[in-house]
Amino acid sequence: MISVEEAIEKILSTIHNQKIEKKFITQLNHYVLAEDVFADRDYPPFNRSAMDGYALSSKTFSKEKTYKVVTTLFAGEVYTSQIPEGSCIKIMTGAPVPDGLDAVVKVEDSEEIESGLVRFNIEFVSEWVNIACLGEDVKSEELVLKKGTLCTPQVVSILATFGKEEVFVFSKPRVAIFPTGNEIVSIEKTPTLAQIRDSNSYTINSFLNQLEIPILNHKILTDEEDDLKEQIEKSIDLDCIILTGGVSMGELDLLPKVMQELGVKEMIHKVKLKPGKPFWFGIARTGCKIFGLPGNPFSVQVTYKLFVEPWIRHFMGFREQQYFYFPIKHEKIKKHKMEEYFPVKLENENGISYLNEIKHNGSGDILAGLYSDGIAVQEEGRNTIHSRENVKFLFWI
Amino acid sequence: MISVEEAIEKILSTIHNQKIEKKFITQLNHYVLAEDVFADRDYPPFNRSAMDGYALSSKTFSKEKTYKVVTTLFAGEVYTSQIPEGSCIKIMTGAPVPDGLDAVVKVEDSEEIESGLVRFNIEFVSEWVNIACLGEDVKSEELVLKKGTLCTPQVVSILATFGKEEVFVFSKPRVAIFPTGNEIVSIEKTPTLAQIRDSNSYTINSFLNQLEIPILNHKILTDEEDDLKEQIEKSIDLDCIILTGGVSMGELDLLPKVMQELGVKEMIHKVKLKPGKPFWFGIARTGCKIFGLPGNPFSVQVTYKLFVEPWIRHFMGFREQQYFYFPIKHEKIKKHKMEEYFPVKLENENGISYLNEIKHNGSGDILAGLYSDGIAVQEEGRNTIHSRENVKFLFWI
Repeated sequence: MISVEEAIEKILSTIHNQKIEKKFITQLNHYVLAEDVFADRDYPPFNRSAMDGYALSSKTFSKEKTYKVVTTLFAGEVYTSQIPEGSCIKIMTGAPVPDGLDAVVKVEDSEEIESGLVRFNIEFVSEWVNIACLGEDVKSEELVLKKGTLCTPQVVSILATFGKEEVFVFSKPRVAIFPTGNEIVSIEKTPTLAQIRDSNSYTINSFLNQLEIPILNHKILTDEEDDLKEQIEKSIDLDCIILTGGVSMGELDLLPKVMQELGVKEMIHKVKLKPGKPFWFGIARTGCKIFGLPGNPFSVQVTYKLFVEPWIRHFMGFREQQYFYFPIKHEKIKKHKMEEYFPVKLENENGISYLNEIKHNGSGDILAGLYSDGIAVQEEGRNTIHSRENVKFLFWI
Repeated sequence: MISVEEAIEKILSTIHNQKIEKKFITQLNHYVLAEDVFADRDYPPFNRSAMDGYALSSKTFSKEKTYKVVTTLFAGEVYTSQIPEGSCIKIMTGAPVPDGLDAVVKVEDSEEIESGLVRFNIEFVSEWVNIACLGEDVKSEELVLKKGTLCTPQVVSILATFGKEEVFVFSKPRVAIFPTGNEIVSIEKTPTLAQIRDSNSYTINSFLNQLEIPILNHKILTDEEDDLKEQIEKSIDLDCIILTGGVSMGELDLLPKVMQELGVKEMIHKVKLKPGKPFWFGIARTGCKIFGLPGNPFSVQVTYKLFVEPWIRHFMGFREQQYFYFPIKHEKIKKHKMEEYFPVKLENENGISYLNEIKHNGSGDILAGLYSDGIAVQEEGRNTIHSRENVKFLFWI
């Protein structure tokens, strides 16, 4: 059995030849840039007044002088005439400071003597005070966004600033979901005693919704070899098939066998992980990645988050760190030798965010993950986590 | 001037009569339940075998006995015949343990003597071992999801489990965005020297995209009283109008004046906040909420996150805590008396997640928020944050 870390490494190593497409700037949520973006102008594009006030020359400034106000300059306007010595310009936030002037005195520090005449009640002004200078943020033709950057609101802001209406991004994967098992019925049906409804497909659909990825094929598969083979083959040209159930040791857990017959190369079967030990992963000849998740509700949540989502994110070009560390509220002891992932809620108390373990009836407990913000990790050899010790944590979202 | 906390409180106090609508289970991302949800059956719905193994009676168990295997029971099947003393049933994970039996011995602890005969190499079995008992997670008719619960993957899993294909949720707000200022040009145009492109609308659009909220009206408004009035009036039947620029002290910052003329009641103008001091908020007679954000890129990000997003979330029924505490990496000193929000990146080092401040050229710096994971708070009276002290932090997403 391999470790969680080794399993993730194996899964991510399968990503080659990412697909790209062009997207409009309003549709970039969850996408990652597939091209470098360069500035098409300096930014600020001019010496921009950062205040409402008076633009003047710092070198000749004097508190004793009375200044003549030549004009008032609003944002969007340019003033190009010469400004005589002893004069200033009333200037609004966002307007370009005219050439030859190098300071803006705040309106609060001024006193209008009479219309068009102003004095200032400060001792001196420094050069470039209250001015955002031409090119101080970005120089024209500078690389502003690297390929591989996630399109956050801040990134979109930069794209708009430099007029990039459309940009190349990495495509989303095309995904199918097949829950397996004779006991599974569709949610619109009334289950008989021994049956349960197909909840896992909707859990995974909801996770995929977080990244706005549609499910292209969804069908409950019975534990019949022919049914499994036929349906999986139909979707084998997609980027990814997610199966739930059918991967443990039971006599009807046919998936590994069916996969072999379909020529799907098994890469992983079983991981030193609780819950989620029976996890299965393979690659079809078409390149389609096949994830076999165990059937218990909480196991599905954990194995999706640990194995499927990182694959999807990397497929889409993501590279970020996703784990954070928080102190745990109460001691946690484990007796097995697996890496354990347990549901936790983040709770703030006296300026500290604690992880609070949510107790449950095991990985089959439908309520296990319900009120959790994410999962925390108790590493293989870490039998006791003491109260207030830091623990690695992963948000569900 | 009021504090950030007081401003948020004022804004949230304006939410009444939330609208609700019915949504299908696959479309619940970002929605909050507007109804209580009850279990339509016990869960587990039967005594479910949690292992592949042999179901038998714990009371009469003996290591010395050879058991006759009556049948093999798969998930989805029911066995109702009497099981004679000294017999057992081979049972697969997920199958219902027949009445009269109360333990499952793992297949690993068994030894098949010959076909149909089995012995066990453990000393004793406890009652209900390896069985998830009928109703142990949830009892039929029990309240499983309260009105006000966010539809996470875990919540969707519960809805599917109990056959709730459709559910009432709180509606999203209908939003318009109007950037204002004579210096602003549309992103597809080439700006002249004193002009800048409309980046703020796309920043806000990207934030709204995170909650999959479309923008119903978007137009750049000039600093002309008539233009402002006409366009705002056209959208006044929506739930919310977001304006950027035009709220500070400049002579063309007409918004507060225009709002008064439109009969929009001013609730907030100026908050003890850096960046974002000129923030404006009012309510139209129609109930439409109007947010006036300052025009600088980073100010827009901060004021959207602090004031607009909480309003949207509460409109949609959210109630969660969004802040977390992390230690800061380097000392931070401030000299003003405002509450300051600054961009930070979360960095992991030796099992601790630190906030690392991102230095920038002020709120007009287009790069200020770019590589940050969120914003951290330096409270009004907290002039020095020492290295490793905990700081309140808000994720952008």
